[in-house]
Amino acid sequence: MQASATTSRDVISSERVEGTKVFNAAGDKLGSIDELMIDKRSGQVRYAVLEFGGFLGMGTERYPLPWDVLKYDTTLDGYVVPLDKAKLEGAPNYLDERPPEYDDDYGRRVHRYYGVDYWM
Amino acid sequence: MQASATTSRDVISSERVEGTKVFNAAGDKLGSIDELMIDKRSGQVRYAVLEFGGFLGMGTERYPLPWDVLKYDTTLDGYVVPLDKAKLEGAPNYLDERPPEYDDDYGRRVHRYYGVDYWM
Repeated sequence: MQASATTSRDVISSERVEGTKVFNAAGDKLGSIDELMIDKRSGQVRYAVLEFGGFLGMGTERYPLPWDVLKYDTTLDGYVVPLDKAKLEGAPNYLDERPPEYDDDYGRRVHRYYGVDYWM
Repeated sequence: MQASATTSRDVISSERVEGTKVFNAAGDKLGSIDELMIDKRSGQVRYAVLEFGGFLGMGTERYPLPWDVLKYDTTLDGYVVPLDKAKLEGAPNYLDERPPEYDDDYGRRVHRYYGVDYWM
């Protein structure tokens, strides 16, 4: 199947994703990807965790984003997500030291918030 | 579906996988996971790259392993792969500075070597 043939350009290292900047559609920087949360059994990336903050003693806020939400933009050299700041403020998030229970209810809630399918 | 319900224990951070030691069934250390190669479109981890060496000017050898080959062993605090050293020596590998073309042919070859399905 020619159309689905894959090349090295279809594959990316986890080390390149980690640290990549994330912007909104207006080009404002929202933060950067800190880590990927992977389903142990299937090897599927369930979330890319966007983090920002960590200054003025406020702690770091972390936003798990569904993989499908991230679109790479070569001009910005980072991911662009279809979220304005108000949308992001209302999104599921947690402080660095208090991760959520990553169960199906949480997965459905995160994916529904961003309007993408939860396939687990 | 109760049986497929997921919890935080079913999810692992890419940062925890990177650096995790890898052993063979006899308990010999083979190396450690350096990075994950992820399918950009689907978010599926296609390979966990095992690396070892990097001393005596020999360069670092890297072995892409299918995700399904890795089994975590809590006693060893690392992954155990069903490979003796002879099997690993014959496995698809590359030197650090010379990555392969990660295309479907390569994917099929790697997965066939380890006897697991290539699902792309």
